[in-house]
Amino acid sequence: MLIVKKFGGTSVGDKDRIMNVARRCAEDFKKGNDIVLVLSAMGKTTDELIAKAKEINPDPPKRELDMLLTTGEQVSVAMMAMAFDTMDIPAVSLNAFQVRMHTTRVHGNARLKRIDTDRIMHELEHRRIVIVTGFQGVNKYDNYTTLGRGGSDTTAVALAAALHADACEIYTDVDGVYTADPRIVPKARKLEEITYDEMLDLATLGAGVLHNRSVEMAKKYGVQLVVRSSLNDHEGTIVKEETSVERMLISGVALDKNTARISVIGLKDEPGMAFRLFNMLAKEGINVDVILQSIGRENSKDISFTISRDEADEAVKIIEANKARIGCTGISCNKEVVKVSIVGAGMMSNPGVAAKMFEALFNENININMISTSEIRITVLINEKDAERAVNAVHDAFGLEE
Amino acid sequence: MLIVKKFGGTSVGDKDRIMNVARRCAEDFKKGNDIVLVLSAMGKTTDELIAKAKEINPDPPKRELDMLLTTGEQVSVAMMAMAFDTMDIPAVSLNAFQVRMHTTRVHGNARLKRIDTDRIMHELEHRRIVIVTGFQGVNKYDNYTTLGRGGSDTTAVALAAALHADACEIYTDVDGVYTADPRIVPKARKLEEITYDEMLDLATLGAGVLHNRSVEMAKKYGVQLVVRSSLNDHEGTIVKEETSVERMLISGVALDKNTARISVIGLKDEPGMAFRLFNMLAKEGINVDVILQSIGRENSKDISFTISRDEADEAVKIIEANKARIGCTGISCNKEVVKVSIVGAGMMSNPGVAAKMFEALFNENININMISTSEIRITVLINEKDAERAVNAVHDAFGLEE
Repeated sequence: MLIVKKFGGTSVGDKDRIMNVARRCAEDFKKGNDIVLVLSAMGKTTDELIAKAKEINPDPPKRELDMLLTTGEQVSVAMMAMAFDTMDIPAVSLNAFQVRMHTTRVHGNARLKRIDTDRIMHELEHRRIVIVTGFQGVNKYDNYTTLGRGGSDTTAVALAAALHADACEIYTDVDGVYTADPRIVPKARKLEEITYDEMLDLATLGAGVLHNRSVEMAKKYGVQLVVRSSLNDHEGTIVKEETSVERMLISGVALDKNTARISVIGLKDEPGMAFRLFNMLAKEGINVDVILQSIGRENSKDISFTISRDEADEAVKIIEANKARIGCTGISCNKEVVKVSIVGAGMMSNPGVAAKMFEALFNENININMISTSEIRITVLINEKDAERAVNAVHDAFGLEE
Repeated sequence: MLIVKKFGGTSVGDKDRIMNVARRCAEDFKKGNDIVLVLSAMGKTTDELIAKAKEINPDPPKRELDMLLTTGEQVSVAMMAMAFDTMDIPAVSLNAFQVRMHTTRVHGNARLKRIDTDRIMHELEHRRIVIVTGFQGVNKYDNYTTLGRGGSDTTAVALAAALHADACEIYTDVDGVYTADPRIVPKARKLEEITYDEMLDLATLGAGVLHNRSVEMAKKYGVQLVVRSSLNDHEGTIVKEETSVERMLISGVALDKNTARISVIGLKDEPGMAFRLFNMLAKEGINVDVILQSIGRENSKDISFTISRDEADEAVKIIEANKARIGCTGISCNKEVVKVSIVGAGMMSNPGVAAKMFEALFNENININMISTSEIRITVLINEKDAERAVNAVHDAFGLEE
């Protein structure tokens, strides 16, 4: 079997954890499996590097920030190869240039386009464990790019697809995918299986277990994922096209604190204004989430949207700079909001799911700011102070603890 | 003018120093010069990375150690590009893959073979300061290599040669090349000019200002070097083919503490034994310095040689492992020795220089362990405890303070 295994920053945070990962992989390797290991930067390295950069330049050029950040994973993979060497397990570390992970041009948030497999296959044929830097790629100008937070998951799935791997295991600090975050909802239950679409919505909505792009890619290429703990041998959660377990109405409740609401007030009521607004954000690589447009006063309109909290300041800055062009009169930004979502492939055929969710929130006297829905998801934006109560109330209302 | 400037680890050790280097380079850039900047890893980064590696694996595979160490310079160049950005100076950082610095295969001590100049020229044509990682290269297997300690000097000189630069400035924490180390010899005097050959011997012998390979390369390609301080604007020392100042008998006294003496006792007196001994060290990339062979007892011979102190343990290990093959009876290693050398193009035509040096040491009652000479250099190996007295005595004897 060819197994792609991905370990995050916490799992390789120090010497003991690195040795632990090496031992786990060595076991599978000795059974005759081929192992491709994808690693993130050790512990808080990426955050530390960003802080270091900001000491020099509060707004560092993104190309150079990527150049800086990519060193983090390179340290991890080199250290891991050294760990295998102490066990006499042949291993080799490869960065994005050595594999050649081709990405789109954009820095800080690039997408993988293609992965050359020659070097990896060559190393596997020589029976070496191949340790690949997650999160990073190289664009057509030979510049380093990064895939955005959680990008190592995407690297792992893309490698599994490109190498036609037999399994893709995502190791994390939780046992699998739960019906809600167990730190917030004590009654949360681990799911045995979940569909790509459900996981996709959970990932997008901040369940924090898998990066959304990685799930999209897994779905696109039919890569079956296993999410499991790097700290124990418990069975994890399998992510695949169709689950075999009987369909629950909803699979889980997700809480996303990394959100902010930006309101652009008094936009000229002319065609193309929304396009201009969101196009200028897109050009800077900023992803907008839920969008709500309403009629303002005197021939104008207001647009509100949610966005990653860490990109909110930059978005406001960009809009401020282009105030004249889009002719808006005011911009406001609220960072004290969260998204609560319920996700479930079962809800497609069940009317009344939304009503049940709103009822649970109403019973807790929680105010809803914005609503957004997809076929298998309902999301509400609420005040941050209500977050925990909301998640527990919804979890209870749908009887997810069973 | 196209100027290559190299700054070492101390010069980019923290935020203030990085900004300082950026300001100095920005001045030259604004005057219309093209600037290629070569940087080492920040401060003690390389040592720290080595220590980290050894926590995991006391004897890390060299390929992986290079993979780890090359992150050090990449951090430096990215941070420097961010510093230029705060001054609105366009700049771009490049690592060994992006420039494509081709080296030989060997890890930890590779040699530069060829440098592709396309990318750098492209960036210069767009009027950007180009910041290149020193010390590192890529071999034909697409693996990172490092050039050994002080390798950033070599990177700078090689770039100056490849780009046909008008000047190559090596910035360091001293004002230039002195007749002796001013920390040891208070009367030491700064030289205005020095020849490649003299500098080569001084570098090889541990004057610590320039890496020997960088001087060899400068000589080979006729790259005129300036050694100057990163902390002030003093004129430095020019290193070139022929000095215009009147020839001193000797130019300086060098002290090299990074040395150890290994003695291999009772080697079989057969042809090829010395070849076997030194070939097995060379294959591991270990450079041997002064070699002395003497007749041992009963049809055997003893070979002593000096070697970098930090490679001594590895050399002993290699010889121990091959004891049977070379048929030796004992190995000893003395790390408490130093090399003291006098260097001067003027000594070629002056007999009695060696005698004068030995006399100065005799007057101080300092015992000489080994002697080695070249046309422009005389080196003695003495006990470490006598080092400072020896250097001062020799400096006085040749009247270098004048």
